[in-house]
Amino acid sequence: MRIGVLTGGGDCPGLNAVIRAIVRKGIPGYGHEFVGFRDGWRGPLEGDTTVLDVQAVRGILPRGGTILGSSRTNPLKIENGIARIKENLASLGVDALIAIGGEDTLGVARALHDSGVPVVGVPKTIDNDLNATDYTFGFDTAVGIAMEAIDRLHTTAESHHRALICEVMGRHAGWIALHAGMAAGANVILIPEKPFDIDRVVAYVESRFRTRYSPILVVSEGAHPVDGQMELLGGDLDAFGHVRLGGIGEWLAKEIEKRTGKEARTTVLGHIQRGGTPTAFDRVLATRFGLQAIDAVNEHDFGIMVALRGTDIVRVGLDEATATLKTVPVERYAEAEVFFG
Amino acid sequence: MRIGVLTGGGDCPGLNAVIRAIVRKGIPGYGHEFVGFRDGWRGPLEGDTTVLDVQAVRGILPRGGTILGSSRTNPLKIENGIARIKENLASLGVDALIAIGGEDTLGVARALHDSGVPVVGVPKTIDNDLNATDYTFGFDTAVGIAMEAIDRLHTTAESHHRALICEVMGRHAGWIALHAGMAAGANVILIPEKPFDIDRVVAYVESRFRTRYSPILVVSEGAHPVDGQMELLGGDLDAFGHVRLGGIGEWLAKEIEKRTGKEARTTVLGHIQRGGTPTAFDRVLATRFGLQAIDAVNEHDFGIMVALRGTDIVRVGLDEATATLKTVPVERYAEAEVFFG
Amino acid sequence: MRIGVLTGGGDCPGLNAVIRAIVRKGIPGYGHEFVGFRDGWRGPLEGDTTVLDVQAVRGILPRGGTILGSSRTNPLKIENGIARIKENLASLGVDALIAIGGEDTLGVARALHDSGVPVVGVPKTIDNDLNATDYTFGFDTAVGIAMEAIDRLHTTAESHHRALICEVMGRHAGWIALHAGMAAGANVILIPEKPFDIDRVVAYVESRFRTRYSPILVVSEGAHPVDGQMELLGGDLDAFGHVRLGGIGEWLAKEIEKRTGKEARTTVLGHIQRGGTPTAFDRVLATRFGLQAIDAVNEHDFGIMVALRGTDIVRVGLDEATATLKTVPVERYAEAEVFFG
Amino acid sequence: MRIGVLTGGGDCPGLNAVIRAIVRKGIPGYGHEFVGFRDGWRGPLEGDTTVLDVQAVRGILPRGGTILGSSRTNPLKIENGIARIKENLASLGVDALIAIGGEDTLGVARALHDSGVPVVGVPKTIDNDLNATDYTFGFDTAVGIAMEAIDRLHTTAESHHRALICEVMGRHAGWIALHAGMAAGANVILIPEKPFDIDRVVAYVESRFRTRYSPILVVSEGAHPVDGQMELLGGDLDAFGHVRLGGIGEWLAKEIEKRTGKEARTTVLGHIQRGGTPTAFDRVLATRFGLQAIDAVNEHDFGIMVALRGTDIVRVGLDEATATLKTVPVERYAEAEVFFG
Repeated sequence: MRIGVLTGGGDCPGLNAVIRAIVRKGIPGYGHEFVGFRDGWRGPLEGDTTVLDVQAVRGILPRGGTILGSSRTNPLKIENGIARIKENLASLGVDALIAIGGEDTLGVARALHDSGVPVVGVPKTIDNDLNATDYTFGFDTAVGIAMEAIDRLHTTAESHHRALICEVMGRHAGWIALHAGMAAGANVILIPEKPFDIDRVVAYVESRFRTRYSPILVVSEGAHPVDGQMELLGGDLDAFGHVRLGGIGEWLAKEIEKRTGKEARTTVLGHIQRGGTPTAFDRVLATRFGLQAIDAVNEHDFGIMVALRGTDIVRVGLDEATATLKTVPVERYAEAEVFFG
Repeated sequence: MRIGVLTGGGDCPGLNAVIRAIVRKGIPGYGHEFVGFRDGWRGPLEGDTTVLDVQAVRGILPRGGTILGSSRTNPLKIENGIARIKENLASLGVDALIAIGGEDTLGVARALHDSGVPVVGVPKTIDNDLNATDYTFGFDTAVGIAMEAIDRLHTTAESHHRALICEVMGRHAGWIALHAGMAAGANVILIPEKPFDIDRVVAYVESRFRTRYSPILVVSEGAHPVDGQMELLGGDLDAFGHVRLGGIGEWLAKEIEKRTGKEARTTVLGHIQRGGTPTAFDRVLATRFGLQAIDAVNEHDFGIMVALRGTDIVRVGLDEATATLKTVPVERYAEAEVFFG
Repeated sequence: MRIGVLTGGGDCPGLNAVIRAIVRKGIPGYGHEFVGFRDGWRGPLEGDTTVLDVQAVRGILPRGGTILGSSRTNPLKIENGIARIKENLASLGVDALIAIGGEDTLGVARALHDSGVPVVGVPKTIDNDLNATDYTFGFDTAVGIAMEAIDRLHTTAESHHRALICEVMGRHAGWIALHAGMAAGANVILIPEKPFDIDRVVAYVESRFRTRYSPILVVSEGAHPVDGQMELLGGDLDAFGHVRLGGIGEWLAKEIEKRTGKEARTTVLGHIQRGGTPTAFDRVLATRFGLQAIDAVNEHDFGIMVALRGTDIVRVGLDEATATLKTVPVERYAEAEVFFG
Repeated sequence: MRIGVLTGGGDCPGLNAVIRAIVRKGIPGYGHEFVGFRDGWRGPLEGDTTVLDVQAVRGILPRGGTILGSSRTNPLKIENGIARIKENLASLGVDALIAIGGEDTLGVARALHDSGVPVVGVPKTIDNDLNATDYTFGFDTAVGIAMEAIDRLHTTAESHHRALICEVMGRHAGWIALHAGMAAGANVILIPEKPFDIDRVVAYVESRFRTRYSPILVVSEGAHPVDGQMELLGGDLDAFGHVRLGGIGEWLAKEIEKRTGKEARTTVLGHIQRGGTPTAFDRVLATRFGLQAIDAVNEHDFGIMVALRGTDIVRVGLDEATATLKTVPVERYAEAEVFFG
């Protein structure tokens, strides 16, 4: 078979490990050949391809990013997007497609599948917010980077009287904040799923200041106070409609300074959470996802995506992938609250 | 309640995170008090205790090792061991015990439970070879350390003509070799579960030498060739009956040099795999194990150990813990073999 | 002798290594005893002391922060500050003082020395801006943390069209930006010593966007554009008179977005640059500083501070320490400019 | 000008940073062009070249190893070696050569220079044993890796009664052992420059065992006991005449077990010390070496090598490079001895 491969959405450590596994098993193992599409759905939409053979995947296992490039191009929002992709796949002689990406990418994959193209999906979201799989690769790496940063803040927290705030990724789901905060011993963790009461946050902060140590707060970029407590934040959007730096972390710092009279300092980790080499967990998971994806293609089992359940890699319907967002449940947040204050 | 806590067996990153979680939830949350037993079962056997309160667990989350100390003392092999422990627990007013450890430690826990002592177990094995749980803490850290070491070997493998061998932990189960080797792109992985044919290993090595790159082999300390291929290794035991350094990694290096005429160099990671700060994965897992253990004690749910199933922390019978060893199944090894040579 | 030790100013990886070396050589080697003063000059000012013996320094070598605590208390700004310190030293029977700190701390040390107290100084500044020494400990660690963060940004820069800005420490001297930016291959480095022309920065950014890669900018927190190019930044001070987050990095992001129409994202590393375990370079330097400091005390060579010259630890007058700031010279910045754009 | 570049000897983190700096300044800055020679002196000897332009050096700054490959081929030991190189340089139109390497490589560079070829040398030795420069790149990275490994051993040393031995690189000079051991708080450091008395080592080990902690020994691969204390070690050479694994670290472990009755375990770091990404210190040093080397070529200042003196990059005669080995002086070892036992 001649199989197209693409990576869509934000970059995420482990993408290259998936690609490598697909190619290393697909070519010498099954005798398939591959077409790499460049920059997510832009590739099949415009017929922009790159060589994808064993030589092309050499040495990429430990590297972040994606050798295929990525984009947020969404064919569903482009006139005749699906039709154009089908045309290009046909003219390139592509028999099947492996699409590696998040909600949006897999949504297109599903639409393509519904329109008759044989597609296998591989889930990717650094935020770990896909319901159909226990974990997605990239998440463990992001949590590790955030944890290490918070670990370092503890040194300062032990010798100065300052509230230290670390803003991490997570617009709609607080998994990174939850895991990094729990792993690094944060005194408060704020997540989008649970609007916070600034009075209660300040109470934790003040209670911590009464010990020898300073408080460390971990906050998802999408966290926000309960209604009525924040006025200005919403207006602070950039030209692209995203909440700007100087978002929630900065807002918190100002409120804490105002209410406690103590200094507050914010670290905004930003893109460093999604860069660099993947952890072992993510490399193994991504590799196993890739192996399972090429197995599925080889068995003509299309319309599915691969997923982790316990220690097994399984296949689930592509529709499951795009059903509901996996948010932090109340009981997981309650585990973390044990350590607040 | 007055609850004893001990850690037994080899040290393992995450032990302190378990202890901290137990104490942080047990004291302010439930109003229990704790007795720390020193050096595994030696503690309750000799009545050797240490203070275990909120202050004692401050700052220990990121630290490897165990603040309680550990030992391989086994009361089942000591005359009246169980009886002596029961006496000491009684005289110290200890109502229940949380035992954190591997097969041996949990075996004693089970015996104690059978003799009427309320016990909860927390599984610990850096080798990840307990059947009752998806993962144990410490394993992810060990795999990460080994992977990083192998990553570094690739640099040399790209510029010199030498076979590079990395010997990792794993006497009876090859999980560390499997995951680290898969994560770091090893050309051959040898594990105890599957005796290897030295001729086939040499064939992989020679095929790799024919490319521009040098072969990297990852080998569990307990790996061994099929019958008849190794004569001397068995005799090379130290005064304590353990296979010496200069074990399988060194034997492989000698064989490869002899058969290929190329240099071979061995790195023996040894104890550095079980030291240092735990990864985020291990800290979160260990913390959640600790929370579940103290919940079980609080609910008088004894004779159980905590375990990971998917993303849930569950409770299983202590007997499950000591049933069978979790070894690498054939299909998991087959996944890795895709990348051999 | 009975020797007081204190650490002043911001925390810095390596402080504990200095303290340990002083004590480990001072007690068993020379037979001195030590008094630890808490929280910088607040300690001797208020007579607040802590035990400082071999047991107290066990295990602290790899730890960031300072076991003695620190503060910015400045006795020169307190009525009778110097006199009160002298009284307390006398009543505690302290014969000599070792003061570990930056410009301010060493300024007090010098004043004390001038007023008759035997003092030895150990220089400390994470910004590396002391003229009298080739390097200060903590700097190498901070550069390493910043470099690793920028390394991670490259992953994203290779797959998305976004300008990525990393704001690092350095209010008055750009050493951290210079070294981290050079080590991590930044496309533009902006430092306080050289006000930048925003048009030229944008030109670099646009030239980079014309390649497949995105630009990475490293900027000292104290960097600023030439006169007339920035209006609002100055007003954005916090309650303590410091430039707020949303400082120069954020200003740059806004300007770049406005002028190029491309997204720009900022990471503000903040306190994570001064926390965590010191690098080997800093541990060795700090240890050797400590050894030299206690040697000087033992030889009654006071009024000096220790310094690095090449590979030697030497002694220089305390006045040298507080003379002029070591800023990035033009020729060092020119080295980095080779790689701009 | 048309300038040849080669890297010789063992690989070393920072080689790529040197190459990149030479090319990035040499092409756009000075208008030179480059010829990359493959695998050290084998390249010019056999006329084996590779493209070396701005594109070729993209992304190599953080990577260990060398894109040019390396070898230990020594033209001085090959008939007409120098003459053949001169012929090839002439026929390739190469006007000058930059040779990056250690004692051997620079020895050939010097011989070439003496025979009329314009050569500039860049020193490279992971062992830091070149007298003409304060530091060489790669050393800081190796020390960091060794330190991190020893840091991890401390965890075990705190909870088990075992002597832990870490064998590091250094056949003739003990710099890595000295710095890593001092940085990580080793209890004994053994280096080639100072044959050790096994009785005294055992005394340190036993004194340490009497505390709660276990001893950690750091030993250079080239360390050895005083005459008469070791019989068998010399015979344990591999087919290539190198001391085998199971060298001094293993010998020490056996002796300590025999004499103390306590277990001893050895970690042999081997090649992981020279692989992986360079530290910031090494990247900056290597980059500055490269810039200075191309400046020298551009100024027709040949027969020199670049060197670090304090914070300056200077030029010294190539003869200095090959004069005497820089070994650990007595007073530096004495600094470390303060912490023994």
